[in-house]
Amino acid sequence: MILTVTLNTALDLTYGVPELVPHASHRVSDVAERPGGKGLNVARVLSALGHETVVTGFAGGATGTVLRTLLAELSPRAAISADATSAPGGASGAAPASGAGDTPAPTPGFDSSPAPITDALVTVAGSTRRTIAVVDRATGDTTQLNEPGPLISADEWSAFLARYEELLAGADAVALCGSLPPGIHVGAYAELIRPARAADVPVFLDTSGEPLRRGIAARPDLIKPNADELAQLTGSRDPLRATRDARRRGAHTVVASLGPDGMLAVTPVGAWQASPPARVPGNPTGAGDSAVAGLLSGLVEGLSWPDRLRRAVALSTATVLSPTAGDFDRAAYEELLPRVGVEERTTAA
Amino acid sequence: MILTVTLNTALDLTYGVPELVPHASHRVSDVAERPGGKGLNVARVLSALGHETVVTGFAGGATGTVLRTLLAELSPRAAISADATSAPGGASGAAPASGAGDTPAPTPGFDSSPAPITDALVTVAGSTRRTIAVVDRATGDTTQLNEPGPLISADEWSAFLARYEELLAGADAVALCGSLPPGIHVGAYAELIRPARAADVPVFLDTSGEPLRRGIAARPDLIKPNADELAQLTGSRDPLRATRDARRRGAHTVVASLGPDGMLAVTPVGAWQASPPARVPGNPTGAGDSAVAGLLSGLVEGLSWPDRLRRAVALSTATVLSPTAGDFDRAAYEELLPRVGVEERTTAA
Repeated sequence: MILTVTLNTALDLTYGVPELVPHASHRVSDVAERPGGKGLNVARVLSALGHETVVTGFAGGATGTVLRTLLAELSPRAAISADATSAPGGASGAAPASGAGDTPAPTPGFDSSPAPITDALVTVAGSTRRTIAVVDRATGDTTQLNEPGPLISADEWSAFLARYEELLAGADAVALCGSLPPGIHVGAYAELIRPARAADVPVFLDTSGEPLRRGIAARPDLIKPNADELAQLTGSRDPLRATRDARRRGAHTVVASLGPDGMLAVTPVGAWQASPPARVPGNPTGAGDSAVAGLLSGLVEGLSWPDRLRRAVALSTATVLSPTAGDFDRAAYEELLPRVGVEERTTAA
Repeated sequence: MILTVTLNTALDLTYGVPELVPHASHRVSDVAERPGGKGLNVARVLSALGHETVVTGFAGGATGTVLRTLLAELSPRAAISADATSAPGGASGAAPASGAGDTPAPTPGFDSSPAPITDALVTVAGSTRRTIAVVDRATGDTTQLNEPGPLISADEWSAFLARYEELLAGADAVALCGSLPPGIHVGAYAELIRPARAADVPVFLDTSGEPLRRGIAARPDLIKPNADELAQLTGSRDPLRATRDARRRGAHTVVASLGPDGMLAVTPVGAWQASPPARVPGNPTGAGDSAVAGLLSGLVEGLSWPDRLRRAVALSTATVLSPTAGDFDRAAYEELLPRVGVEERTTAA
């Protein structure tokens, strides 16, 4: 299974309004609620690709209860006890919960029935934060409001560390995702990278700012910054230069997201740039999380770097195209996959 | 006791941001949650004035559970079973839940320990809505986002009607407050006014648009529209003319809110205008609900019309002055009360 860590999970609300006007009153025309936080988004895409995933991190309060209910509804094994450690191994052999009956054994990456997502979140006293995306229905433009998240106590952090090390034992890879909630020290990701490396579990780090800077020093296998995060980290806006710099700081592989231009990967065995066949209109929310899911699943399946990048770029482009923020359009993904261009880059400094 | 009806209760969230910028991402610096909807706001002020209050309407889902928990925390009798019909009579004789010990028997209107608020909400399958007030911390300007509310079924409406008629039997007055949730017919307030009048319980109606227009025809004792609501109802922006027109449509008394200029009351026994001593800066959210609480408590206490208006204007001005939206500043209220000017108006058409 693949483990994703979301220390600051969120109940993601999407509000449709005709147009957001500051200092006016708005009737919200439609409300959508879903479990959020980067690691949960990554898990949802991994599940859609047929990879069994375990999610951990923190959840609490009434919003945490709603988040966990919605998370359970995502999984085809929702009715089965969510004891992470009792469900090792792949989902490939599991029967679908509601039988379409005509699907063959699922192929990872192209399975049409989602694999289980197991809830291994640690319950905390504080309340899981809400995030609100206010979408102008005329233009699709989005205004984002993010609550800070619950204050995590030292005891809650210790309980999480114990759960995390237990889960690592059964993980093929782990992704550490998103912002830190109040109360968690800024070097937390470094503290999570070390036991993963000691256990030989490949570890991805997808965060920004000081948590990224401190995390890199613990030598994660992969980071996936966007251009702004990379510039903030290295001081350079030249992708190749900044990517090389980020590797010198400790990341084994850096996959820089270049937005609509695709991705640049600098790895220990070479460098590649992958580009979508065309620029596409849509909402980029969640495109980065889909890319992480593509890279993680490609690693676990033993794909070559060009194939991992092809998948990551096709998934993130199919996410931009999807009418629902953060979901990916499966038909678009399958159509895009063979059309993503990958070329080798020289990395000589 | 005083009964308030809130068919579309809300979990009111206040988000502080440096400045709301459309299509940008915002970290919310502070989050406040409280039970909302106009009738609940009125009940909170009545409780602060020492009047025992029962709240009914609908609540459901996770947001409804949070709302009811917060509502219970407001009341000094939170630990006692919320069976409305078993708690008739005033709160004046009740001992404070946590003993300051040095307070004399409370005087309604000036009691410093709040009277109980009893939760007689009807549980529904849908989820209580959220409202979000996004406050620019630099200027205090507020952007409001209101969810529509749960769909109420015919069975839930019937269950509410039965609860309402039962509660009316013990009520000294009833206030029908706010918007209608989806599923409730637009003539609902008329349906609630008739049994109140049949039971000789004075009934206030504080709503707007078509629910107000339909409600007035059932002859409520009092409506409290603001200038916009009055203009929408009557087509006139002249307060005296519009107020007279609203009375002809069925309201026995019309108290028109004139914003910072105070209130104009046209009653069966005369007309008065009450004005605060000065214009005050602040947030007008909840000022109208405080005015309703002032008028209701003044009615139940048998105050003269000038004294009821004095209280309503002092309370709403003290609400504008309060740093927390919807709360009133007690010291300001007591200081303002004797300084509110009231003059008689002629109503001859």
